[in-house]
Amino acid sequence: MEDLKKQIKEFIQARDWEQYHAPKNLALALSVEVAEILEIFQWKENQENLSPHEIEALKQEIGDVLIYLLELADKYQIDLIQAAKDKMALNALKYPAEKVKGKAWKYTEYQ
Amino acid sequence: MEDLKKQIKEFIQARDWEQYHAPKNLALALSVEVAEILEIFQWKENQENLSPHEIEALKQEIGDVLIYLLELADKYQIDLIQAAKDKMALNALKYPAEKVKGKAWKYTEYQ
Amino acid sequence: MEDLKKQIKEFIQARDWEQYHAPKNLALALSVEVAEILEIFQWKENQENLSPHEIEALKQEIGDVLIYLLELADKYQIDLIQAAKDKMALNALKYPAEKVKGKAWKYTEYQ
Amino acid sequence: MEDLKKQIKEFIQARDWEQYHAPKNLALALSVEVAEILEIFQWKENQENLSPHEIEALKQEIGDVLIYLLELADKYQIDLIQAAKDKMALNALKYPAEKVKGKAWKYTEYQ
Repeated sequence: MEDLKKQIKEFIQARDWEQYHAPKNLALALSVEVAEILEIFQWKENQENLSPHEIEALKQEIGDVLIYLLELADKYQIDLIQAAKDKMALNALKYPAEKVKGKAWKYTEYQ
Repeated sequence: MEDLKKQIKEFIQARDWEQYHAPKNLALALSVEVAEILEIFQWKENQENLSPHEIEALKQEIGDVLIYLLELADKYQIDLIQAAKDKMALNALKYPAEKVKGKAWKYTEYQ
Repeated sequence: MEDLKKQIKEFIQARDWEQYHAPKNLALALSVEVAEILEIFQWKENQENLSPHEIEALKQEIGDVLIYLLELADKYQIDLIQAAKDKMALNALKYPAEKVKGKAWKYTEYQ
Repeated sequence: MEDLKKQIKEFIQARDWEQYHAPKNLALALSVEVAEILEIFQWKENQENLSPHEIEALKQEIGDVLIYLLELADKYQIDLIQAAKDKMALNALKYPAEKVKGKAWKYTEYQ
Protein backbone atom coordinates (compact mmCIF):
# COMPACT_ATOMS: atom_id res chain seq x y z
CA MET A 1 0.00 0.00 0.00
CA GLU A 2 2.83 2.41 0.86
CA ASP A 3 4.51 1.59 -2.48
CA LEU A 4 1.31 2.30 -4.32
CA LYS A 5 0.81 5.60 -2.49
CA LYS A 6 4.31 6.70 -3.49
CA GLN A 7 3.76 5.61 -7.08
CA ILE A 8 0.55 7.69 -7.28
CA LYS A 9 2.20 10.76 -5.74
CA GLU A 10 5.06 10.66 -8.25
CA PHE A 11 2.70 10.12 -11.16
CA ILE A 12 0.71 13.23 -10.26
CA GLN A 13 3.74 15.39 -9.60
CA ALA A 14 5.39 14.42 -12.90
CA ARG A 15 2.23 15.62 -14.68
CA ASP A 16 1.69 18.74 -12.60
CA TRP A 17 -1.82 17.56 -11.79
CA GLU A 18 -2.03 18.52 -8.09
CA GLN A 19 -3.89 21.64 -9.23
CA TYR A 20 -6.80 19.53 -10.49
CA HIS A 21 -6.90 17.02 -7.66
CA ALA A 22 -8.91 18.96 -5.10
CA PRO A 23 -10.77 16.53 -2.80
CA LYS A 24 -14.10 17.42 -4.38
CA ASN A 25 -12.74 16.57 -7.82
CA LEU A 26 -11.32 13.29 -6.55
CA ALA A 27 -14.74 12.39 -5.16
CA LEU A 28 -16.17 13.10 -8.60
CA ALA A 29 -13.47 11.04 -10.32
CA LEU A 30 -14.19 8.18 -7.93
CA SER A 31 -17.84 8.31 -8.91
CA VAL A 32 -16.99 8.29 -12.64
CA GLU A 33 -14.78 5.21 -12.21
CA VAL A 34 -17.41 3.36 -10.20
CA ALA A 35 -19.88 4.05 -13.00
CA GLU A 36 -17.49 2.27 -15.37
CA ILE A 37 -17.81 -0.76 -13.10
CA LEU A 38 -21.59 -0.41 -13.16
CA GLU A 39 -21.50 -0.28 -16.95
CA ILE A 40 -20.06 -3.80 -17.04
CA PHE A 41 -23.05 -5.16 -15.09
CA GLN A 42 -25.64 -2.85 -16.61
CA TRP A 43 -27.70 -5.24 -18.73
CA LYS A 44 -26.82 -8.49 -16.99
CA GLU A 45 -28.84 -10.82 -14.84
CA ASN A 46 -27.88 -10.82 -11.16
CA GLN A 47 -26.18 -14.21 -11.43
CA GLU A 48 -24.81 -13.85 -14.97
CA ASN A 49 -21.10 -14.58 -15.46
CA LEU A 50 -18.59 -12.11 -16.85
CA SER A 51 -16.43 -12.96 -19.87
CA PRO A 52 -12.62 -13.01 -19.42
CA HIS A 53 -12.55 -9.71 -21.35
CA GLU A 54 -15.08 -8.19 -18.92
CA ILE A 55 -13.15 -9.45 -15.89
CA GLU A 56 -10.02 -7.77 -17.25
CA ALA A 57 -11.97 -4.52 -17.72
CA LEU A 58 -13.35 -4.88 -14.18
CA LYS A 59 -9.85 -5.35 -12.81
CA GLN A 60 -8.71 -2.13 -14.44
CA GLU A 61 -11.69 -0.15 -13.15
CA ILE A 62 -11.24 -1.56 -9.65
CA GLY A 63 -7.64 -0.40 -9.88
CA ASP A 64 -8.77 3.11 -10.80
CA VAL A 65 -11.24 3.20 -7.91
CA LEU A 66 -8.55 2.22 -5.40
CA ILE A 67 -6.17 4.85 -6.82
CA TYR A 68 -8.66 7.70 -6.38
CA LEU A 69 -9.88 6.37 -3.03
CA LEU A 70 -6.32 6.28 -1.73
CA GLU A 71 -5.62 9.75 -3.04
CA LEU A 72 -8.77 11.16 -1.46
CA ALA A 73 -8.11 9.47 1.89
CA ASP A 74 -4.57 10.79 1.85
CA LYS A 75 -5.79 14.40 1.59
CA TYR A 76 -7.22 14.01 5.11
CA GLN A 77 -4.57 11.65 6.52
CA ILE A 78 -7.15 8.88 6.60
CA ASP A 79 -5.64 5.40 6.73
CA LEU A 80 -7.67 3.37 4.26
CA ILE A 81 -7.42 -0.03 5.93
CA GLN A 82 -8.04 1.42 9.38
CA ALA A 83 -11.09 3.31 8.11
CA ALA A 84 -12.54 0.05 6.78
CA LYS A 85 -11.80 -1.83 10.00
CA ASP A 86 -13.40 0.90 12.11
CA LYS A 87 -16.42 0.90 9.80
CA MET A 88 -16.74 -2.88 10.12
CA ALA A 89 -16.93 -2.44 13.90
CA LEU A 90 -19.68 0.17 13.49
CA ASN A 91 -21.54 -2.06 11.02
CA ALA A 92 -21.47 -4.91 13.53
CA LEU A 93 -23.29 -2.64 16.02
CA LYS A 94 -25.68 -1.33 13.39
CA TYR A 95 -26.59 -4.79 12.14
CA PRO A 96 -26.61 -7.30 15.04
CA ALA A 97 -26.30 -10.77 13.50
CA GLU A 98 -29.19 -12.27 15.45
CA LYS A 99 -31.53 -9.48 14.31
CA VAL A 100 -30.73 -9.21 10.63
CA LYS A 101 -29.82 -12.79 9.76
CA GLY A 102 -30.93 -13.52 6.20
CA LYS A 103 -32.65 -10.14 5.78
CA ALA A 104 -31.59 -7.35 3.45
CA TRP A 105 -33.43 -4.46 5.06
CA LYS A 106 -32.00 -1.06 5.60
CA TYR A 107 -30.81 -0.56 9.16
CA THR A 108 -33.44 2.09 9.89
CA GLU A 109 -36.05 -0.61 9.41
CA TYR A 110 -34.76 -2.74 12.29
CA GLN A 111 -35.38 -0.11 14.92
CA MET B 1 -5.58 -6.23 4.18
CA GLU B 2 -5.83 -9.98 4.77
CA ASP B 3 -7.21 -9.31 8.27
CA LEU B 4 -9.82 -7.01 6.85
CA LYS B 5 -10.82 -9.53 4.18
CA LYS B 6 -11.31 -12.18 6.83
CA GLN B 7 -13.31 -9.77 9.02
CA ILE B 8 -15.64 -8.98 6.10
CA LYS B 9 -16.14 -12.63 5.20
CA GLU B 10 -17.09 -13.53 8.77
CA PHE B 11 -19.42 -10.56 9.05
CA ILE B 12 -21.33 -11.65 5.95
CA GLN B 13 -21.48 -15.31 6.91
CA ALA B 14 -22.75 -14.53 10.41
CA ARG B 15 -25.63 -12.60 8.81
CA ASP B 16 -26.33 -15.08 6.02
CA TRP B 17 -25.92 -12.29 3.49
CA GLU B 18 -23.97 -14.13 0.75
CA GLN B 19 -27.30 -14.57 -1.05
CA TYR B 20 -27.60 -10.80 -1.57
CA HIS B 21 -23.97 -10.11 -2.39
CA ALA B 22 -23.93 -11.02 -6.08
CA PRO B 23 -21.19 -9.05 -7.89
CA LYS B 24 -23.76 -6.86 -9.63
CA ASN B 25 -25.30 -5.94 -6.28
CA LEU B 26 -21.88 -5.18 -4.83
CA ALA B 27 -21.19 -2.84 -7.75
CA LEU B 28 -24.46 -1.11 -6.97
CA ALA B 29 -23.65 -0.88 -3.27
CA LEU B 30 -20.26 0.58 -4.15
CA SER B 31 -21.99 3.25 -6.18
CA VAL B 32 -24.41 4.09 -3.36
CA GLU B 33 -21.51 4.50 -0.90
CA VAL B 34 -19.55 6.72 -3.30
CA ALA B 35 -22.64 8.91 -3.62
CA GLU B 36 -22.53 9.40 0.15
CA ILE B 37 -19.02 10.76 -0.32
CA LEU B 38 -20.28 13.05 -3.10
CA GLU B 39 -23.02 14.29 -0.80
CA ILE B 40 -20.42 15.70 1.57
CA PHE B 41 -18.93 17.84 -1.22
CA GLN B 42 -22.18 18.57 -2.99
CA TRP B 43 -22.66 22.28 -2.31
CA LYS B 44 -19.06 23.20 -1.53
CA GLU B 45 -16.54 25.27 -3.40
CA ASN B 46 -13.68 23.27 -4.93
CA GLN B 47 -11.22 24.46 -2.31
CA GLU B 48 -13.59 24.65 0.64
CA ASN B 49 -12.51 22.90 3.85
CA LEU B 50 -14.46 20.16 5.56
CA SER B 51 -15.47 20.41 9.21
CA PRO B 52 -14.15 17.78 11.67
CA HIS B 53 -17.64 16.27 11.65
CA GLU B 54 -17.57 16.02 7.84
CA ILE B 55 -14.10 14.48 7.86
CA GLU B 56 -15.35 11.82 10.28
CA ALA B 57 -18.31 11.12 7.97
CA LEU B 58 -15.93 10.97 5.00
CA LYS B 59 -13.74 8.48 6.84
CA GLN B 60 -16.72 6.21 7.44
CA GLU B 61 -17.87 6.38 3.82
CA ILE B 62 -14.33 5.73 2.57
CA GLY B 63 -14.31 2.68 4.83
CA ASP B 64 -17.56 1.44 3.28
CA VAL B 65 -16.21 1.93 -0.24
CA LEU B 66 -13.10 -0.10 0.52
CA ILE B 67 -15.20 -2.87 2.10
CA TYR B 68 -17.40 -3.29 -0.98
CA LEU B 69 -14.47 -2.85 -3.36
CA LEU B 70 -12.56 -5.60 -1.60
CA GLU B 71 -15.58 -7.87 -1.58
CA LEU B 72 -16.21 -7.31 -5.30
CA ALA B 73 -12.54 -7.86 -6.22
CA ASP B 74 -12.53 -11.04 -4.17
CA LYS B 75 -15.38 -12.52 -6.21
CA TYR B 76 -13.00 -12.63 -9.18
CA GLN B 77 -9.78 -13.34 -7.27
CA ILE B 78 -8.58 -9.83 -8.13
CA ASP B 79 -5.81 -8.58 -5.84
CA LEU B 80 -6.77 -5.00 -5.07
CA ILE B 81 -3.29 -3.54 -4.63
CA GLN B 82 -1.94 -5.38 -7.68
CA ALA B 83 -4.88 -4.16 -9.79
CA ALA B 84 -4.07 -0.56 -8.82
CA LYS B 85 -0.35 -1.00 -9.53
CA ASP B 86 -1.06 -2.52 -12.94
CA LYS B 87 -3.48 0.31 -13.70
CA MET B 88 -0.87 2.89 -12.72
CA ALA B 89 1.48 1.31 -15.29
CA LEU B 90 -1.24 1.55 -17.96
CA ASN B 91 -2.01 5.14 -16.98
CA ALA B 92 1.65 6.04 -17.39
CA LEU B 93 1.47 4.83 -21.02
CA LYS B 94 -1.89 6.49 -21.61
CA TYR B 95 -0.74 9.85 -20.23
CA PRO B 96 2.94 10.42 -21.04
CA ALA B 97 4.22 13.09 -18.64
CA GLU B 98 5.82 15.26 -21.33
CA LYS B 99 2.58 15.36 -23.33
CA VAL B 100 -0.01 16.01 -20.62
CA LYS B 101 1.94 18.13 -18.16
CA GLY B 102 -0.38 20.65 -16.55
CA LYS B 103 -3.34 19.70 -18.75
CA ALA B 104 -6.55 18.01 -17.62
CA TRP B 105 -7.79 16.72 -20.98
CA LYS B 106 -9.26 13.33 -21.55
CA TYR B 107 -6.72 10.90 -23.00
CA THR B 108 -8.61 10.61 -26.30
CA GLU B 109 -7.87 14.28 -26.88
CA TYR B 110 -4.10 13.79 -26.90
CA GLN B 111 -4.08 11.46 -29.86
CA MET C 1 -43.55 14.26 -23.58
CA GLU C 2 -46.16 11.79 -24.90
CA ASP C 3 -44.43 11.85 -28.32
CA LEU C 4 -41.11 11.10 -26.72
CA LYS C 5 -42.57 8.25 -24.67
CA LYS C 6 -43.98 6.68 -27.83
CA GLN C 7 -40.67 7.14 -29.67
CA ILE C 8 -38.79 5.36 -26.86
CA LYS C 9 -41.26 2.48 -26.74
CA GLU C 10 -41.00 1.87 -30.49
CA PHE C 11 -37.21 2.09 -30.38
CA ILE C 12 -37.02 -0.62 -27.73
CA GLN C 13 -39.56 -2.89 -29.37
CA ALA C 14 -37.83 -2.68 -32.75
CA ARG C 15 -34.63 -3.89 -31.09
CA ASP C 16 -36.26 -6.52 -28.89
CA TRP C 17 -34.67 -4.91 -25.84
CA GLU C 18 -37.58 -5.16 -23.35
CA GLN C 19 -35.86 -8.26 -21.97
CA TYR C 20 -32.90 -6.16 -20.76
CA HIS C 21 -34.87 -3.17 -19.51
CA ALA C 22 -35.87 -4.44 -16.07
CA PRO C 23 -36.38 -1.48 -13.69
CA LYS C 24 -33.20 -2.32 -11.80
CA ASN C 25 -31.21 -2.24 -15.02
CA LEU C 26 -32.78 1.06 -16.01
CA ALA C 27 -31.76 2.52 -12.64
CA LEU C 28 -28.22 1.34 -13.36
CA ALA C 29 -28.28 2.80 -16.87
CA LEU C 30 -29.50 6.09 -15.43
CA SER C 31 -26.55 6.12 -13.08
CA VAL C 32 -24.09 5.39 -15.89
CA GLU C 33 -25.48 8.29 -17.95
CA VAL C 34 -25.34 10.71 -15.03
CA ALA C 35 -21.69 9.75 -14.56
CA GLU C 36 -21.08 10.86 -18.14
CA ILE C 37 -22.42 14.26 -17.12
CA LEU C 38 -20.13 14.25 -14.07
CA GLU C 39 -17.19 13.42 -16.33
CA ILE C 40 -17.65 16.74 -18.15
CA PHE C 41 -17.29 18.69 -14.88
CA GLN C 42 -14.74 16.37 -13.28
CA TRP C 43 -11.61 18.52 -13.30
CA LYS C 44 -13.24 21.94 -13.57
CA GLU C 45 -13.52 24.78 -11.13
CA ASN C 46 -17.02 25.34 -9.75
CA GLN C 47 -17.53 28.46 -11.87
CA GLU C 48 -15.56 27.36 -14.95
CA ASN C 49 -17.32 27.66 -18.31
CA LEU C 50 -17.95 24.78 -20.67
CA SER C 51 -16.75 24.87 -24.28
CA PRO C 52 -19.39 24.65 -27.07
CA HIS C 53 -18.18 21.08 -27.65
CA GLU C 54 -18.75 20.25 -23.97
CA ILE C 55 -22.21 21.85 -23.97
CA GLU C 56 -23.15 19.69 -26.96
CA ALA C 57 -21.89 16.59 -25.09
CA LEU C 58 -23.86 17.70 -22.01
CA LYS C 59 -27.00 18.10 -24.10
CA GLN C 60 -26.66 14.53 -25.37
CA GLU C 61 -26.09 13.11 -21.91
CA ILE C 62 -29.02 15.07 -20.50
CA GLY C 63 -31.09 13.56 -23.31
CA ASP C 64 -30.00 10.06 -22.29
CA VAL C 65 -30.84 10.72 -18.64
CA LEU C 66 -34.35 11.88 -19.51
CA ILE C 67 -34.87 8.84 -21.76
CA TYR C 68 -34.01 6.34 -19.01
CA LEU C 69 -35.82 8.35 -16.36
CA LEU C 70 -38.98 8.35 -18.45
CA GLU C 71 -38.66 4.65 -19.15
CA LEU C 72 -38.15 3.83 -15.46
CA ALA C 73 -41.06 6.04 -14.36
CA ASP C 74 -43.27 4.41 -16.96
CA LYS C 75 -42.66 0.94 -15.49
CA TYR C 76 -44.57 2.10 -12.40
CA GLN C 77 -47.06 4.40 -14.12
CA ILE C 78 -45.33 7.36 -12.51
CA ASP C 79 -46.03 10.66 -14.26
CA LEU C 80 -42.67 12.40 -14.43
CA ILE C 81 -43.84 15.99 -14.27
CA GLN C 82 -46.37 15.25 -11.54
CA ALA C 83 -43.68 13.43 -9.48
CA ALA C 84 -41.47 16.53 -9.68
CA LYS C 85 -44.32 18.88 -8.75
CA ASP C 86 -45.29 16.73 -5.77
CA LYS C 87 -41.64 16.60 -4.70
CA MET C 88 -41.36 20.38 -4.93
CA ALA C 89 -44.30 20.63 -2.52
CA LEU C 90 -42.56 18.25 -0.10
CA ASN C 91 -39.29 20.16 -0.44
CA ALA C 92 -41.06 23.40 0.44
CA LEU C 93 -42.15 21.80 3.74
CA LYS C 94 -38.75 20.26 4.35
CA TYR C 95 -36.90 23.51 3.73
CA PRO C 96 -38.98 26.46 4.98
CA ALA C 97 -37.62 29.57 3.23
CA GLU C 98 -37.31 31.64 6.41
CA LYS C 99 -35.27 28.93 8.10
CA VAL C 100 -32.82 27.93 5.38
CA LYS C 101 -32.35 31.20 3.53
CA GLY C 102 -28.78 31.37 2.22
CA LYS C 103 -27.74 28.15 3.94
CA ALA C 104 -26.75 24.89 2.25
CA TRP C 105 -27.23 22.53 5.17
CA LYS C 106 -28.84 19.17 4.95
CA TYR C 107 -32.44 19.23 6.14
CA THR C 108 -31.70 17.00 9.13
CA GLU C 109 -29.48 19.79 10.46
CA TYR C 110 -32.35 22.27 10.72
CA GLN C 111 -34.32 20.24 13.20
CA MET D 1 -42.97 21.58 -17.85
CA GLU D 2 -42.97 25.38 -17.99
CA ASP D 3 -44.99 25.47 -14.75
CA LEU D 4 -42.51 23.21 -13.07
CA LYS D 5 -39.56 25.29 -14.27
CA LYS D 6 -41.14 28.41 -12.82
CA GLN D 7 -41.90 26.63 -9.53
CA ILE D 8 -38.25 25.54 -9.22
CA LYS D 9 -36.91 29.00 -9.99
CA GLU D 10 -39.10 30.61 -7.33
CA PHE D 11 -38.20 27.96 -4.78
CA ILE D 12 -34.49 28.65 -5.24
CA GLN D 13 -34.83 32.42 -5.22
CA ALA D 14 -36.92 32.38 -2.04
CA ARG D 15 -34.11 30.47 -0.33
CA ASP D 16 -31.24 32.46 -1.84
CA TRP D 17 -29.73 29.24 -3.13
CA GLU D 18 -28.54 30.38 -6.59
CA GLN D 19 -25.08 30.79 -5.05
CA TYR D 20 -24.83 27.04 -4.45
CA HIS D 21 -26.42 25.90 -7.69
CA ALA D 22 -23.39 26.12 -10.01
CA PRO D 23 -23.79 23.62 -12.89
CA LYS D 24 -21.06 21.40 -11.46
CA ASN D 25 -22.89 21.22 -8.13
CA LEU D 26 -26.17 20.44 -9.87
CA ALA D 27 -24.46 17.56 -11.71
CA LEU D 28 -23.28 16.30 -8.33
CA ALA D 29 -26.74 16.66 -6.80
CA LEU D 30 -28.19 14.76 -9.75
CA SER D 31 -25.78 11.94 -9.07
CA VAL D 32 -26.66 11.85 -5.37
CA GLU D 33 -30.39 11.62 -6.19
CA VAL D 34 -29.85 8.84 -8.74
CA ALA D 35 -27.95 6.91 -6.08
CA GLU D 36 -31.05 7.11 -3.90
CA ILE D 37 -32.91 5.36 -6.72
CA LEU D 38 -30.15 2.74 -6.92
CA GLU D 39 -30.44 2.18 -3.19
CA ILE D 40 -34.02 0.98 -3.64
CA PHE D 41 -32.88 -1.75 -6.06
CA GLN D 42 -29.56 -2.49 -4.36
CA TRP D 43 -30.17 -5.97 -2.93
CA LYS D 44 -33.01 -7.04 -5.17
CA GLU D 45 -33.23 -9.64 -7.89
CA ASN D 46 -33.55 -8.22 -11.40
CA GLN D 47 -37.21 -9.15 -11.64
CA GLU D 48 -38.16 -8.58 -8.00
CA ASN D 49 -41.20 -6.39 -7.34
CA LEU D 50 -41.15 -3.20 -5.29
CA SER D 51 -43.46 -2.72 -2.33
CA PRO D 52 -45.98 0.18 -2.44
CA HIS D 53 -43.74 1.96 0.07
CA GLU D 54 -40.73 1.53 -2.24
CA ILE D 55 -42.69 2.73 -5.26
CA GLU D 56 -43.64 5.87 -3.34
CA ALA D 57 -39.95 6.42 -2.43
CA LEU D 58 -39.00 5.83 -6.07
CA LYS D 59 -41.56 8.39 -7.20
CA GLN D 60 -40.05 11.00 -4.89
CA GLU D 61 -36.50 10.29 -6.03
CA ILE D 62 -37.55 10.39 -9.69
CA GLY D 63 -39.09 13.77 -8.92
CA ASP D 64 -35.80 15.00 -7.46
CA VAL D 65 -33.84 13.77 -10.48
CA LEU D 66 -36.15 15.62 -12.87
CA ILE D 67 -35.89 18.80 -10.78
CA TYR D 68 -32.07 18.86 -10.89
CA LEU D 69 -31.96 17.74 -14.52
CA LEU D 70 -34.27 20.58 -15.50
CA GLU D 71 -32.27 23.08 -13.50
CA LEU D 72 -28.99 21.93 -15.04
CA ALA D 73 -30.39 21.97 -18.57
CA ASP D 74 -31.76 25.43 -17.98
CA LYS D 75 -28.29 26.79 -17.14
CA TYR D 76 -27.33 26.15 -20.79
CA GLN D 77 -30.73 26.88 -22.37
CA ILE D 78 -31.07 23.21 -23.20
CA ASP D 79 -34.64 22.13 -23.87
CA LEU D 80 -35.03 18.84 -22.02
CA ILE D 81 -37.58 17.19 -24.28
CA GLN D 82 -35.80 18.32 -27.43
CA ALA D 83 -32.48 17.01 -26.10
CA ALA D 84 -34.05 13.59 -25.53
CA LYS D 85 -35.68 13.55 -28.98
CA ASP D 86 -32.39 14.51 -30.67
CA LYS D 87 -30.59 11.83 -28.68
CA MET D 88 -33.18 9.22 -29.74
CA ALA D 89 -32.40 10.09 -33.37
CA LEU D 90 -28.67 9.63 -32.71
CA ASN D 91 -29.31 6.34 -30.89
CA ALA D 92 -31.26 5.05 -33.89
CA LEU D 93 -28.16 5.63 -36.05
CA LYS D 94 -25.82 4.18 -33.43
CA TYR D 95 -27.91 1.04 -32.93
CA PRO D 96 -29.52 0.00 -36.24
CA ALA D 97 -32.43 -2.30 -35.38
CA GLU D 98 -31.46 -5.05 -37.84
CA LYS D 99 -27.95 -5.23 -36.40
CA VAL D 100 -28.59 -5.15 -32.65
CA LYS D 101 -31.92 -6.94 -32.42
CA GLY D 102 -32.03 -8.93 -29.17
CA LYS D 103 -28.43 -8.12 -28.25
CA ALA D 104 -27.24 -6.00 -25.35
CA TRP D 105 -23.74 -5.22 -26.55
CA LYS D 106 -22.08 -1.86 -26.33
CA TYR D 107 -22.22 0.01 -29.61
CA THR D 108 -18.43 -0.12 -30.04
CA GLU D 109 -18.75 -3.90 -30.31
CA TYR D 110 -20.95 -3.74 -33.42
CA GLN D 111 -18.39 -2.02 -35.56
